[in-house]
Amino acid sequence: MTMSNCNEFCPVARANDVLGGKWTTLIIRDLLPGKKRYSELQRSLVGISPRMLAQRLAKLEGAGLIVKTIYPTVPPKTEYELSNIGRKAENIIAAMAEFGATLGEG
Amino acid sequence: MTMSNCNEFCPVARANDVLGGKWTTLIIRDLLPGKKRYSELQRSLVGISPRMLAQRLAKLEGAGLIVKTIYPTVPPKTEYELSNIGRKAENIIAAMAEFGATLGEG
Repeated sequence: MTMSNCNEFCPVARANDVLGGKWTTLIIRDLLPGKKRYSELQRSLVGISPRMLAQRLAKLEGAGLIVKTIYPTVPPKTEYELSNIGRKAENIIAAMAEFGATLGEG
Repeated sequence: MTMSNCNEFCPVARANDVLGGKWTTLIIRDLLPGKKRYSELQRSLVGISPRMLAQRLAKLEGAGLIVKTIYPTVPPKTEYELSNIGRKAENIIAAMAEFGATLGEG
């Protein structure tokens, strides 16, 4: 595992490309307990715009980290869940939670 | 440790506020082996603009994750190193490296 200085294709940079944007890790955090509807994510992620949420979900889906299921109900119901790849990001979220807890409330 | 659904002040969100921007985790990765000069960071972070690097370093310094030392030489030499707080982010970088390695080259 290479953690030190390496070029833009190093593993940390690859993870950063997928997870680096604002909200992305928070979406994964919200999906760790299980699948969620779009509206549940919107409620949980206080301050995110519908456009931003849709963009982030599409990016994570494109990168293979989440799976979207559309149920043919009226109105249609859309659910998101982590893929096997997405679930591997759990260690990052756990390390972030641990680090964040040491930062205090400030 | 709270990892699941929580409000914007939860530990994951706090870590995200500090580490979430593009390049931020890569700067910390570069500083893990030890202190570096501004020019070394600029060379390592292929594609970063001087303005963006300065902004990110200032943000990390403001958050207490890195320490900047200016040596009164001619010309002045500036070095950056991780603080004790910044060093605690190592687990996140390690988890990102592990995750990034599983993403393949694509």
